[in-house]
Amino acid sequence: MARVNPNYSKLKAGYLFPEIGRRVRAYQAANPSHQVIRMGIGDVVLPIPEAVRIAMHKAVDEIGTLQGFHGYGPEQGYDFLREAIAAEYKSRGAQIDASEIFVSDGSKCDTGNIQELFSLDATIALTDPVYPVYVDTNVMAGRTGELGADGRYAGIEYLPMNAANHFVAPLPTQSPEVIYLCSPNNPTGTVMTREELTNWVEYAQKNGSIILFDAAYEAYVQDPSLPRSIFEIPGARKVAIEFRSFSKTAGFTGIRCGYTVIPTELEGTASDGSKVSLHSMWNRRHSTKFNGASYPVQRGAEAVFSPEGKEQVRAMVGYYLENARMMRTGLQSLGFDVYGGENAPYIWLKVPAGLDSWGFFDKLLNEVQVVGTPGAGFGPSGEGYFRLSAFALRETVHEALGRIAKAFSRK
Amino acid sequence: MARVNPNYSKLKAGYLFPEIGRRVRAYQAANPSHQVIRMGIGDVVLPIPEAVRIAMHKAVDEIGTLQGFHGYGPEQGYDFLREAIAAEYKSRGAQIDASEIFVSDGSKCDTGNIQELFSLDATIALTDPVYPVYVDTNVMAGRTGELGADGRYAGIEYLPMNAANHFVAPLPTQSPEVIYLCSPNNPTGTVMTREELTNWVEYAQKNGSIILFDAAYEAYVQDPSLPRSIFEIPGARKVAIEFRSFSKTAGFTGIRCGYTVIPTELEGTASDGSKVSLHSMWNRRHSTKFNGASYPVQRGAEAVFSPEGKEQVRAMVGYYLENARMMRTGLQSLGFDVYGGENAPYIWLKVPAGLDSWGFFDKLLNEVQVVGTPGAGFGPSGEGYFRLSAFALRETVHEALGRIAKAFSRK
Repeated sequence: MARVNPNYSKLKAGYLFPEIGRRVRAYQAANPSHQVIRMGIGDVVLPIPEAVRIAMHKAVDEIGTLQGFHGYGPEQGYDFLREAIAAEYKSRGAQIDASEIFVSDGSKCDTGNIQELFSLDATIALTDPVYPVYVDTNVMAGRTGELGADGRYAGIEYLPMNAANHFVAPLPTQSPEVIYLCSPNNPTGTVMTREELTNWVEYAQKNGSIILFDAAYEAYVQDPSLPRSIFEIPGARKVAIEFRSFSKTAGFTGIRCGYTVIPTELEGTASDGSKVSLHSMWNRRHSTKFNGASYPVQRGAEAVFSPEGKEQVRAMVGYYLENARMMRTGLQSLGFDVYGGENAPYIWLKVPAGLDSWGFFDKLLNEVQVVGTPGAGFGPSGEGYFRLSAFALRETVHEALGRIAKAFSRK
Repeated sequence: MARVNPNYSKLKAGYLFPEIGRRVRAYQAANPSHQVIRMGIGDVVLPIPEAVRIAMHKAVDEIGTLQGFHGYGPEQGYDFLREAIAAEYKSRGAQIDASEIFVSDGSKCDTGNIQELFSLDATIALTDPVYPVYVDTNVMAGRTGELGADGRYAGIEYLPMNAANHFVAPLPTQSPEVIYLCSPNNPTGTVMTREELTNWVEYAQKNGSIILFDAAYEAYVQDPSLPRSIFEIPGARKVAIEFRSFSKTAGFTGIRCGYTVIPTELEGTASDGSKVSLHSMWNRRHSTKFNGASYPVQRGAEAVFSPEGKEQVRAMVGYYLENARMMRTGLQSLGFDVYGGENAPYIWLKVPAGLDSWGFFDKLLNEVQVVGTPGAGFGPSGEGYFRLSAFALRETVHEALGRIAKAFSRK
């Protein structure tokens, strides 16, 4: 008989978001007349920018002609898009060459696949709470032991973030080889300062660690003193890989496009102690297991960097940030302890005493039909917290805040 | 220092197609005035079907509106597409439920990722020559030893296909847990008969093996006696996974869409001997590491199954098959031994005595500027053979045949 990968059985029963979907569907089946407000999955709702729509239209027309047909593109992405991305980095003071950019069908895939470059013995550290994909993909690869009663997988160093440390993860103590960081953070909505990120880069340099930096929400950083890329930090090119996405920036959650930046000087260590280029390894992986992002999609992504595209994206990001501000102040006025939501599209709140985070999820769903994300789904230190997404229409935010107010004035 | 995956260093220097690209670029840089004809990569050239263009247009317009916006879709694909695919299976006598179909961004990814479901100790068999992705992804995962002097990786059972056995792979002798098959075959262009495929299904049943069946070229099967899906064979639902693609069917090489079919009753074995559903495992992988195929792309794929779409695809496939016929007869009249090209878009030919397959590649490139694919790039048993792709415009086929005739009449 064909033996299966034994590591999948270590995974918790359901990936967080499908589990939320399951509970919402069950509720709706039992209560078909109730209108549920979804602020759980963090999915955008505004239409794609006009510049993107026009560019994709044009690309679809183009491949409908013999002269304009495009078949297989470069696995790494078309130069037109890689160069537009490189120019954007340059405009922010980060020196990234177009050849260091790998275009993909989204950051979920990239942040999930990147662990393949490392030894199965490589030690991992990640913040807690954290985007579950980082954890689960390492579990599936066999880089961890079993899930403990404390909600932690053996073999991973968890760096707790909570109100007590202002959601600033402590530096590791176990000298991990690979460190996952995310800023603006999913799920806490907090953003690393330049000083904090510099500390991480210096730690990685000293320790020989590689930082996997997820910047999927960088477009939400408005405060010019905060870094939007790890490559704004001196020395980062020798220690970091960065992931970015068009999903939350330009409404691409359904269109699918992201990219990974691997500087050519970034190196890992082979078993004989020699240095190995991670750029070359990722290039090999990308060429072997991926066939390039969709051509019309890449043309749409290119349009995000046009003057009109930039303006349209700015307006879209501004709209969601105004939602976040309203949610932040509205929830604060209800007496909640609220974090994030200033340079990020996520609100992270402390659940009221007497409830855990799934209990708060069920209460909001059952009593006022508002869906959020239980903090415990992001790791043990997320217990007692709850994530709300600002990706909603303004009227939905009003309605949700009104409903939450009702639920918590009843007591 | 961060230790890297040691298995990447076992890979041969270049993935076949990038290596061909490198040689062609070098030739063109040295000979900028020479026009190179590319029949190497197997990339389609005809524009996308009009039905696809219209559907993608409409979908792009839709997501440009508030009401029609689609964000994250189901990771497994939209029901509209899964149901269209299931109906197509049904029309050919294969019982596949829509829930057994996983839509992706292409078969290269799926055939590359599927090995993750199996134990790192699972034994693998594959035909030789073979699509390099099957081999390389197992090497990268660590399921093999080093590459031997015979061009074979230790730990893989190679099933040679050559003129002597009419390119019909022998059954394995080492009781492999996982077997890769491809029909219509890439690269040989040969197609398994119903009897041959039945033998494989029966072998897998007896041996407890899982067959990974790559049917990317099924649309090219015209002979109604030949199977287009392994699920046309009784018993296959308990032993097989099938991969299909819109790339070669409907010109999607640049648009990116494929799908994987895993019957719900297909099982592997856990380390404690219990049975594990491969459908559940792939669902977990797909949900954790993938975020669904692009919405406009899925709408385009759906249109392939409309009456107009079917008609347009039939015409496109017919065009390439006529190329294949011309190439087959043209090369035969030049005295070549030619295989494939009847129910497949690939021509597989024996290179003339005195040359190996890369030598023949270099000769064609340097003397008459025709690019094909050296058989040796597909495995040691491909040595002495050469693949030409029928994915070309008619005039290109004429020109290429004329040039090859010239090269081989000089002798």
